[in-house]
Amino acid sequence: MALTFTLALAADHSPLQDFCVADPKSQVLVNGLACKDPTLVKANDFFFRGLHLEGNTSNPVGSKVAPVTVSQLPGLNTLGISLARIDFAPWGTNPPHTHPRATEILTVIEGTLEVGFVTSNPGNRHVTKVLQKGDVFVFPVGLVHYQRNVGYGNAVAIAALSSQNPGVITIANAVFGATPDIASDVLAKAFQVDKDVVADLKSKF
Amino acid sequence: MALTFTLALAADHSPLQDFCVADPKSQVLVNGLACKDPTLVKANDFFFRGLHLEGNTSNPVGSKVAPVTVSQLPGLNTLGISLARIDFAPWGTNPPHTHPRATEILTVIEGTLEVGFVTSNPGNRHVTKVLQKGDVFVFPVGLVHYQRNVGYGNAVAIAALSSQNPGVITIANAVFGATPDIASDVLAKAFQVDKDVVADLKSKF
Amino acid sequence: MALTFTLALAADHSPLQDFCVADPKSQVLVNGLACKDPTLVKANDFFFRGLHLEGNTSNPVGSKVAPVTVSQLPGLNTLGISLARIDFAPWGTNPPHTHPRATEILTVIEGTLEVGFVTSNPGNRHVTKVLQKGDVFVFPVGLVHYQRNVGYGNAVAIAALSSQNPGVITIANAVFGATPDIASDVLAKAFQVDKDVVADLKSKF
Amino acid sequence: MALTFTLALAADHSPLQDFCVADPKSQVLVNGLACKDPTLVKANDFFFRGLHLEGNTSNPVGSKVAPVTVSQLPGLNTLGISLARIDFAPWGTNPPHTHPRATEILTVIEGTLEVGFVTSNPGNRHVTKVLQKGDVFVFPVGLVHYQRNVGYGNAVAIAALSSQNPGVITIANAVFGATPDIASDVLAKAFQVDKDVVADLKSKF
Amino acid sequence: MALTFTLALAADHSPLQDFCVADPKSQVLVNGLACKDPTLVKANDFFFRGLHLEGNTSNPVGSKVAPVTVSQLPGLNTLGISLARIDFAPWGTNPPHTHPRATEILTVIEGTLEVGFVTSNPGNRHVTKVLQKGDVFVFPVGLVHYQRNVGYGNAVAIAALSSQNPGVITIANAVFGATPDIASDVLAKAFQVDKDVVADLKSKF
Amino acid sequence: MALTFTLALAADHSPLQDFCVADPKSQVLVNGLACKDPTLVKANDFFFRGLHLEGNTSNPVGSKVAPVTVSQLPGLNTLGISLARIDFAPWGTNPPHTHPRATEILTVIEGTLEVGFVTSNPGNRHVTKVLQKGDVFVFPVGLVHYQRNVGYGNAVAIAALSSQNPGVITIANAVFGATPDIASDVLAKAFQVDKDVVADLKSKF
Repeated sequence: MALTFTLALAADHSPLQDFCVADPKSQVLVNGLACKDPTLVKANDFFFRGLHLEGNTSNPVGSKVAPVTVSQLPGLNTLGISLARIDFAPWGTNPPHTHPRATEILTVIEGTLEVGFVTSNPGNRHVTKVLQKGDVFVFPVGLVHYQRNVGYGNAVAIAALSSQNPGVITIANAVFGATPDIASDVLAKAFQVDKDVVADLKSKF
Repeated sequence: MALTFTLALAADHSPLQDFCVADPKSQVLVNGLACKDPTLVKANDFFFRGLHLEGNTSNPVGSKVAPVTVSQLPGLNTLGISLARIDFAPWGTNPPHTHPRATEILTVIEGTLEVGFVTSNPGNRHVTKVLQKGDVFVFPVGLVHYQRNVGYGNAVAIAALSSQNPGVITIANAVFGATPDIASDVLAKAFQVDKDVVADLKSKF
Repeated sequence: MALTFTLALAADHSPLQDFCVADPKSQVLVNGLACKDPTLVKANDFFFRGLHLEGNTSNPVGSKVAPVTVSQLPGLNTLGISLARIDFAPWGTNPPHTHPRATEILTVIEGTLEVGFVTSNPGNRHVTKVLQKGDVFVFPVGLVHYQRNVGYGNAVAIAALSSQNPGVITIANAVFGATPDIASDVLAKAFQVDKDVVADLKSKF
Repeated sequence: MALTFTLALAADHSPLQDFCVADPKSQVLVNGLACKDPTLVKANDFFFRGLHLEGNTSNPVGSKVAPVTVSQLPGLNTLGISLARIDFAPWGTNPPHTHPRATEILTVIEGTLEVGFVTSNPGNRHVTKVLQKGDVFVFPVGLVHYQRNVGYGNAVAIAALSSQNPGVITIANAVFGATPDIASDVLAKAFQVDKDVVADLKSKF
Repeated sequence: MALTFTLALAADHSPLQDFCVADPKSQVLVNGLACKDPTLVKANDFFFRGLHLEGNTSNPVGSKVAPVTVSQLPGLNTLGISLARIDFAPWGTNPPHTHPRATEILTVIEGTLEVGFVTSNPGNRHVTKVLQKGDVFVFPVGLVHYQRNVGYGNAVAIAALSSQNPGVITIANAVFGATPDIASDVLAKAFQVDKDVVADLKSKF
Repeated sequence: MALTFTLALAADHSPLQDFCVADPKSQVLVNGLACKDPTLVKANDFFFRGLHLEGNTSNPVGSKVAPVTVSQLPGLNTLGISLARIDFAPWGTNPPHTHPRATEILTVIEGTLEVGFVTSNPGNRHVTKVLQKGDVFVFPVGLVHYQRNVGYGNAVAIAALSSQNPGVITIANAVFGATPDIASDVLAKAFQVDKDVVADLKSKF
């Protein structure tokens, strides 16, 4: 499972043929997924069903992401794009994260979202906006960003990402929930807090 | 004119800074748009309002595309992605076209769409599928493709494209509606018809 | 079949070693062709014989293309370039087509050619020129273009393309000759003609 | 200001001429820096002096980075590489950060460093190693990573980055020190702590 | 001077619009040439006349190259391809050189050529072949290569290169004819000869 | 042999997953190295020991390069960067060479180096500088360059290259030491010397 997942994350190259549908049975690991025999490719290889389904937001952050990357839709292999549906309970938050390999463009289908991203050093400027239904916002590649439902009911957004395997690094999980964990001394210096605060933060992930 | 000008400048490069918001006042024409002074950039530069608005499909093909490319949303400059909303009247068709610089991934928001693309020579294989609400389909870069509303009511789709300036070549318009027109003899040989059929086809564009 | 297979594997990446000669025996399908063992590579892997041979133009369009892509010359793999010879009978036409993955630069070896390309929407501007022996013309990547012999005798051109697997989409064949065919209703709306005209056009391909 | 300005312009493209030395006087902002007139280019444009100088590590994290990017060395423009010297006091830490546009390769010149990076979701695997003088380690592009002096004396490293403008996002600063700050509610949900802990963390940056 | 200037600006990027014809009047120097206003572009911008003309081979090496790069044909800007005609007197030689930014594919139009390239260290393998009219050969990007007329009469070849500004480094000129010259001691060590042999070699360039 | 084999496979692509550690056991040859199963990857895959070791400069040129490319450090695969240590005896020279796939940035750790590169035709301009400890210099991709110890003692430099498999073409070896050798007539014309001088030069390599 872990292997499949990791493998399913390979390639963003420009396509070098009409298509290169990812072959789930291939034993070959390359920088990008190996392709299925093109003569066996079917319309279903370019198809995914389910973005109409409401996500289950009963979790600590109150949001749920349903990705449609090359892992869910093998025809995306080599084509450099993917989609996701994001559901938010009231005050639900898609917490600060980065996509190491993609810019994100998001449009609100329902509800009201506060969104923002932060520029790199030394500015660390926070660029933020409240979005309504039909509004569109862009999160440049690699920058820390988040969304939060600030309306009265649920909210739904469709996001597109400029990679078939954009990757996600949820900041809190990567820093305080790494396995094995990062030395508390490193994190205490980084966040300028005592080690018991670090220990408390680690205990949540 | 403004549109032509803007399109002629749009950029797909990997971003080389946090962002490079397109500067509509720049006199400099390069392979990609010149950037606005980053200290003057505002959240609105990454924002577009209007994808909730229904398109006017009262036209011969019965469909309407509302693009959100770098021309509408300057913050997309250099970031390699864009969105569009497509509205379809019953039996409305987004006619065969190519995007010379982008793959398209589409999800149905409402209604039922027949979609398809055709592979390059010598196969010219037609890969087609009927989509319902929540379904997703991919059209690989450069290939001829189309969508058609085959349901009873209106249909709406959101499409994402892997370029901030994907370009559109509507086949019928490019071939029979070019300015000045392509010699009828060329088109008669290409489509294996008499010149009066070509003349008739040209008269529509 | 063999051709389809080979095309489906060709590669345009920047080379990451001195060369990566395509291995015709490889079972591995990737975004680009697998390489032959470099210690077994020979000068003949970089060599092709036959561009001096006149093409047979006895066909409905009166032209013949002899490609030298990675399918014919395995040493081109990963190197991003290919050649072709095009022969034209008097009034022979290389009908409107696109190369989804390459710009084309062409020089006339013999005869007189009318050439042209059409820009994308909304302009659909037709850029055209009559060429004599020794003239050179460029067809930008992805745009619809054609050539036609407008001289008294045969014509010959050498074209270079910026990909080892440029791909060809002949417009008439892709639109009216796809397998299975595109619904007549789609094409009737696209070309603004009756379905019987569409049926007639389909019957030619 | 000058720094921000310069960073906002830096370029990673493949060079399209022998060199394109960044022109500090150019008013033109593009995706990458405008070039100096090549006839005015001098050897000093490819030169930087100062990596032998010990950095001042008298600061809360006990480390100091001296970058040699296109901002310091204009000849790096378009060439896709840069250097840095990093000094560490005993137990000094270069805190968790990402480079949105570069992989880093580091070699220890003096001392003993513990280094590590964390993979993306869902694994968040911590890959870590203790390095001695002459050891080399790699931090893949976009991943969170850090270094810490775990020896008895000072430590020095030379790092190379695969971009002339790699960018740095120090996690703690971007998340808790953004301007304006990110809503405490967002951060409290993200780190699963009370808002007063968030307030305390914000007060440090 | 004009040539140097133009070369220093040429661009290989993927085009980000239908075309970006180089503007000879632009004062802006970027990594690639600034574009002409697209509304002023004409068919002649994509056109060059003269590859039918025999080159003057009355020079010490007995060969002459007529390039058609972005310097001669501004419409090639951003399109990643160029052409050249090479004429050879009997025993004329196009001496060992590299193209730092292009692979070359060559076809013989007339005569008989011996061609070869040398792989990188440590092999320095010489891959060589004698070509007749209609034969095609490939020289991978960056490798040292040459051609020599080994037939009885003149020879002519058409070469295509995978860049609109491929660059040429003629080995003998770069090493023994640099301005100012490279220290004789460096060259004596490199070629394992006495300094007087180096002095003699320098005197020829 | 093993070295040649490995080099022939190395990869410079943008990484399409967190990492793609080169698998030394893979039988698959592609444009870039096949990856190790990511679940088996260890910290040692990103690690190399030995850059603190002095190189043996007892050879005709008086210099020694210790490379840390993907051949020595498999974790560099797909990450586009590498390092090297260069040792110089007094007056030792790293003779004129090119890297076909990388720019080089070098810093002096100890001693005094004269360095230089030569621009392409027609300028062949020699850009040169004497460097002290802590100085940094850049050699743009593909250009001929060299370093020479001009101080009283040994010299040491650390160089970074913008590719995990940069390649090296030592000019003298490629031209006069190719296997099989290049015809003396070609080299005599190229260097404008008698064939006996060519024979003498060939005898050294």
